[in-house]
Amino acid sequence: MSSFQTQDADFERRVRESFSRQHVMSMIGASLRRVEPGAIDIALPFRDELTQQNGYIHAGILTTVADSACGYAAYTLMPAGSGVLSVEFKVNLLRPAVGELFVAEARVVKAGATLTVTRCDVYGWAAEEAKLVATMLATMIRR
Amino acid sequence: MSSFQTQDADFERRVRESFSRQHVMSMIGASLRRVEPGAIDIALPFRDELTQQNGYIHAGILTTVADSACGYAAYTLMPAGSGVLSVEFKVNLLRPAVGELFVAEARVVKAGATLTVTRCDVYGWAAEEAKLVATMLATMIRR
Amino acid sequence: MSSFQTQDADFERRVRESFSRQHVMSMIGASLRRVEPGAIDIALPFRDELTQQNGYIHAGILTTVADSACGYAAYTLMPAGSGVLSVEFKVNLLRPAVGELFVAEARVVKAGATLTVTRCDVYGWAAEEAKLVATMLATMIRR
Amino acid sequence: MSSFQTQDADFERRVRESFSRQHVMSMIGASLRRVEPGAIDIALPFRDELTQQNGYIHAGILTTVADSACGYAAYTLMPAGSGVLSVEFKVNLLRPAVGELFVAEARVVKAGATLTVTRCDVYGWAAEEAKLVATMLATMIRR
Repeated sequence: MSSFQTQDADFERRVRESFSRQHVMSMIGASLRRVEPGAIDIALPFRDELTQQNGYIHAGILTTVADSACGYAAYTLMPAGSGVLSVEFKVNLLRPAVGELFVAEARVVKAGATLTVTRCDVYGWAAEEAKLVATMLATMIRR
Repeated sequence: MSSFQTQDADFERRVRESFSRQHVMSMIGASLRRVEPGAIDIALPFRDELTQQNGYIHAGILTTVADSACGYAAYTLMPAGSGVLSVEFKVNLLRPAVGELFVAEARVVKAGATLTVTRCDVYGWAAEEAKLVATMLATMIRR
Repeated sequence: MSSFQTQDADFERRVRESFSRQHVMSMIGASLRRVEPGAIDIALPFRDELTQQNGYIHAGILTTVADSACGYAAYTLMPAGSGVLSVEFKVNLLRPAVGELFVAEARVVKAGATLTVTRCDVYGWAAEEAKLVATMLATMIRR
Repeated sequence: MSSFQTQDADFERRVRESFSRQHVMSMIGASLRRVEPGAIDIALPFRDELTQQNGYIHAGILTTVADSACGYAAYTLMPAGSGVLSVEFKVNLLRPAVGELFVAEARVVKAGATLTVTRCDVYGWAAEEAKLVATMLATMIRR
């Protein structure tokens, strides 16, 4: 999680444009919060329609924002003209996803020419306090 | 993936009742297709609002149905009065999630008193043909 | 886990030659048992020096044979002149690794031009009976 | 990765005693370097007999030290009388495992009554410089 050099000065516009084409992001109410070289934060306010049987945000929805955050974190470091796809990810659910707001914070661990490995911590915010609710380790591929 | 004995004759009602409380399932349009001891299938018709930047179903949405399928597959084998939560899962995305219908087929690999390990294959159906688009390996906990 | 076509008629010689260069395989006493297109089995007899604190085979040693089995299963389907490296793997430990002999059975799930996804089940054999002790889901890359 | 409180003042003796019973650690030449609440480092000098086909340390051997480091990191926070077992782990191989010495640095992410989640970064040291060669995300269970 060192500092990263971009290969494309226009990376932020590229990320925002691709994010706006992810229809699922607007459906669940997620938005980009941070777009920096090797680092993406995505925010997701609590909504009752995103819940599982106990009223917590469903693990798959946390995964949806974490996966997009990891993908775009990798994408910030790719050359112009690239596309990005998820190869695989693993998620540990650490606490019930309780809170008013969830923030997925993805950081690149290792950027390669073809594959990029990223981590993402997802925090649940309640009463001004953040708790780590999930963590992802993911592999992304440049296309 | 052998045959499994239930500990609760009423497992199907229990699964269907819990599934109906997962608000996210109705939001994305997913429905239960198979409810058997150690085996759950969940169907998800294609919807444009579930897509990522290339028009494929978002990996996180495939994960959402696969995670619920794994959780309920584990749940079929738990005693009455149990709850189930995801500990962790890993997903490999094998092909672009193209198709008219997606079916997540979860099967229990090993059921324990506390932890249950499950697999889930997600197929995309187009023109009467199914292709494997993702596979999950997950750990569930009884609560 | 369908049937696979090789791109190189000489795949078996290539796998055996590479396996013989994995010094760790001879150190732990592992040997190739099956070499078929998309399928590799590796056998590992119990040895006390491979154990963890309870006298079971260490999870990392099961992983060592499962990873080689997955890598070579992927390698059987690659063109002549290729190399293979592990991108990542996830392992669930299902039962204590008790037995006289362990067999890692790897099968290709999806073979791609660059990445190949494989599964591996590891069985522990005791008194003529096999029990599933671990399962791996892995991504391999052609080099 | 915050600071952790132990429940057993004698945790270090307990970790060292258990480590000494892991026969595989002495077979591969690994040793404990750091034993602190929620944090374990294990060192492994390069040995030719631990290599895969290209002369790098085999991914399964890196996993062996990372898994023990994660298990003992979790174990430092468990009450006296506990045992610890691996539930599952996922490893990303980031660079060829080249170097004179490898150090697996495990840190607890979330300690629970039953399950503990840990991360482990494995560094390869060559000419006084460390490079991250692998990273693990693991779940441990108290027994």
